[in-house]
Amino acid sequence: MGHSLSTKHLLGLEYLEVKDIEKVLEVGFIFKEILNRPIKKVPTLRGKTIINLFYEPSTRTRVSFEQAGKILSADVINVTPETSSTTKGESLFNTALTIQAMKADTVVIRHPHAGAPYFLAQKLDCSVINAGDGMHAHPTQGLLDIHTIVKHLGSLEGKKVTIVGDILYSRVARTNLWALTKMGAKVVLCGPRTLIPPDFLNNARNTEGHPFASIEVEGDLNLAIRDADVVMALRIQRERQRSRHLPSLLEYSRMYGITSQRMRHASPDALVMHPGPINEGIEIDSDVAHGARSLIEYQVTAGVAIRMALLCSASAEQEPKDQGYI
Amino acid sequence: MGHSLSTKHLLGLEYLEVKDIEKVLEVGFIFKEILNRPIKKVPTLRGKTIINLFYEPSTRTRVSFEQAGKILSADVINVTPETSSTTKGESLFNTALTIQAMKADTVVIRHPHAGAPYFLAQKLDCSVINAGDGMHAHPTQGLLDIHTIVKHLGSLEGKKVTIVGDILYSRVARTNLWALTKMGAKVVLCGPRTLIPPDFLNNARNTEGHPFASIEVEGDLNLAIRDADVVMALRIQRERQRSRHLPSLLEYSRMYGITSQRMRHASPDALVMHPGPINEGIEIDSDVAHGARSLIEYQVTAGVAIRMALLCSASAEQEPKDQGYI
Amino acid sequence: MGHSLSTKHLLGLEYLEVKDIEKVLEVGFIFKEILNRPIKKVPTLRGKTIINLFYEPSTRTRVSFEQAGKILSADVINVTPETSSTTKGESLFNTALTIQAMKADTVVIRHPHAGAPYFLAQKLDCSVINAGDGMHAHPTQGLLDIHTIVKHLGSLEGKKVTIVGDILYSRVARTNLWALTKMGAKVVLCGPRTLIPPDFLNNARNTEGHPFASIEVEGDLNLAIRDADVVMALRIQRERQRSRHLPSLLEYSRMYGITSQRMRHASPDALVMHPGPINEGIEIDSDVAHGARSLIEYQVTAGVAIRMALLCSASAEQEPKDQGYI
Repeated sequence: MGHSLSTKHLLGLEYLEVKDIEKVLEVGFIFKEILNRPIKKVPTLRGKTIINLFYEPSTRTRVSFEQAGKILSADVINVTPETSSTTKGESLFNTALTIQAMKADTVVIRHPHAGAPYFLAQKLDCSVINAGDGMHAHPTQGLLDIHTIVKHLGSLEGKKVTIVGDILYSRVARTNLWALTKMGAKVVLCGPRTLIPPDFLNNARNTEGHPFASIEVEGDLNLAIRDADVVMALRIQRERQRSRHLPSLLEYSRMYGITSQRMRHASPDALVMHPGPINEGIEIDSDVAHGARSLIEYQVTAGVAIRMALLCSASAEQEPKDQGYI
Repeated sequence: MGHSLSTKHLLGLEYLEVKDIEKVLEVGFIFKEILNRPIKKVPTLRGKTIINLFYEPSTRTRVSFEQAGKILSADVINVTPETSSTTKGESLFNTALTIQAMKADTVVIRHPHAGAPYFLAQKLDCSVINAGDGMHAHPTQGLLDIHTIVKHLGSLEGKKVTIVGDILYSRVARTNLWALTKMGAKVVLCGPRTLIPPDFLNNARNTEGHPFASIEVEGDLNLAIRDADVVMALRIQRERQRSRHLPSLLEYSRMYGITSQRMRHASPDALVMHPGPINEGIEIDSDVAHGARSLIEYQVTAGVAIRMALLCSASAEQEPKDQGYI
Repeated sequence: MGHSLSTKHLLGLEYLEVKDIEKVLEVGFIFKEILNRPIKKVPTLRGKTIINLFYEPSTRTRVSFEQAGKILSADVINVTPETSSTTKGESLFNTALTIQAMKADTVVIRHPHAGAPYFLAQKLDCSVINAGDGMHAHPTQGLLDIHTIVKHLGSLEGKKVTIVGDILYSRVARTNLWALTKMGAKVVLCGPRTLIPPDFLNNARNTEGHPFASIEVEGDLNLAIRDADVVMALRIQRERQRSRHLPSLLEYSRMYGITSQRMRHASPDALVMHPGPINEGIEIDSDVAHGARSLIEYQVTAGVAIRMALLCSASAEQEPKDQGYI
């Protein structure tokens, strides 16, 4: 079956082989076209149930999965367990067993604890897709990001991608490090030293064969951006200031905000990306975010297409029979 | 294409021509019949995505749009952005771009700020339907109200419609002033002077050609109701008392509550309407609200039919091809 | 029409005749098979609207009904009215009229007040299914429980079923007393005296002909379980401790927790059941909850099947024509 991944779950991109990533991109490109049709509906997942199990609020990722599932004719059910301290809920394990017993085919989970999707995948027969777990991973974001770059640059091989901002706490960054290095990109990280993972500041990972050995850290944004093919700004969490990782948002903005002035150091056709939602005027200026080089909206559309590809693949894994998905 | 409006958005009834209003009513009457079928489902909007973007809670309007969209076979996705002061969300502009990039066909928006739907309509390629913006407008409510009156009285031309209650803060009242005067009704407003817009108390709008020139204000409910063909009670917000617009709800009820006693002043076949949810015993007595003249439930059904008509029209505008909608 | 109940509503099992219960079980067994198909979708309720009207939070019951409705091709709309003291909502009566006017075919209601579904059923033309009302009843839980027992033991006639825990406040227990006694089971109740209804402690119901005359109370768990065919643990609410019904959860667990040690007193093939969500280690030990005798997950699946059967039956009552439901 041409379009299925080598595992039925999507937990983190560290576990995906390059050929699997390429398969997802390929199917994603097909679904991207379907999204432009006047009637956006294919019967691929008719009779399948997708549970959006969101332990953290997330409008955009939840809506993206819901849209993807519905276009594929799946039944999509949103579940947002109460996790307040006053309501002692059931354990994640028992919730998982319950969802499985209700005959879910795919569980899309977002959880504040890193590893929750892995735990589910070990326990469940149905497919599990990680929609963000703590500070660990957000693999569908990573896949939509490389889909976006490959669509516009043809390939990632040898391309310079500069990631700017809060690398330490960002599951988007962590996920993209795997995706980008696997696809052959040269990655440069830039941000306050307090928000760069220690491994990248000392030489812990600079041993031969370490998958992140080639990643560079550059504190000066102008140098980091120089000749970049892609500049990816990360969302800065306002909590970082309270937790003393940042002196102030204004100062952060002055040193690490992406401006059109700074973009002159990049390659002339450099792409600008951001996982959203954006803090306009802080990590990225409005004219850059909405400028000609910005792919921020394209990323959102790619997100729906990539999630359609993954939902199909997850479902296909469960049935041995070969059947087309369009 | 017979059923599309002259604009693809529905923002406020001030922008709608009479022929457009009549078109919506006409299509609404057809859909009203479909609602009575044992199998309420037409394929008109299959493959279309409707986003219910509700920044204010509203069970009845949200459910009405969801029901309308689903009967038309559209995919309906509910989005309720967090607007608490602690969660600094993204700007309305960026939310709009994101929704568009997810390939929404129609955005139904309710927002506490007047003008939010207009802003969206300027920025988005997809259709925008105003489901209530601040104190400004609630155009689908206005359309379902005149649908209800036309269905029962044949026409609004020359009919006396008395609107009772909080005119100042009511987007329902504001919207109905446009709808009713455009359709030729004689409108009388009645309520505490503190809840009548100043323009109507002084003669600011009493100039030749002002669309509201013919609207009268009458403080005495018995006189206001005299010979009325329609009596429309508005919901009184309990906050009005706290904000000193009202001495007490009891006093309000005594002076402006619609009772069967007072309805004797109206035309013998006068209709009773209320946009809901009603405060029984305050702005309207139970026996009137649930009496033979009451169209309150009819209004709810008409709301689903009118919203079906508008969702079809919004979607049709986006495609040049003529296609039947049933 | 073979599969419809003698009433169109499902309010409490006290009103259901044995032949009706048997019909629901029979249809439930058929739907249970459909849940195992790779494509879980039948067109039975296409064009029908199910409103999930939940005044109390309940993820599992709401999701179960949503899944059941969607597999049957119905449109399912979730409504969770705000009931906080700050938001003065409309009356249940007016909410009911509104939902009916929106052309709901079936209303599934959960409400903190016992009797709310009965009130709705008297006022509405559409079908009403009780998804839990106060401490009174949870009839779909009762039906899925006897479905589960009948599936595994063939029949309830003469079987010993021991219910352990908070009988006083549990709508699950109250519902199961009706279901189990009607089907001929011998029921034994076990729990702290403070959590056994007074009627069962004194001899109030021990008169000839009282439907619960045969039910026994046994304070010693080992004796209560002896030779039981089914052991049903109830969820203990942590609030019970605060309200002084229990000395401590630890003590409760020691005296009334279901352990594998204690299960040795039961029949060798005894079934273990729990309505969920479970407090592992309190009312039931992990090895029992997830052991070979446990039917807890089966109950969840049976719940979807039973709710499909009831939704079909509710809908069928509204139309006189005979039509297959698969």
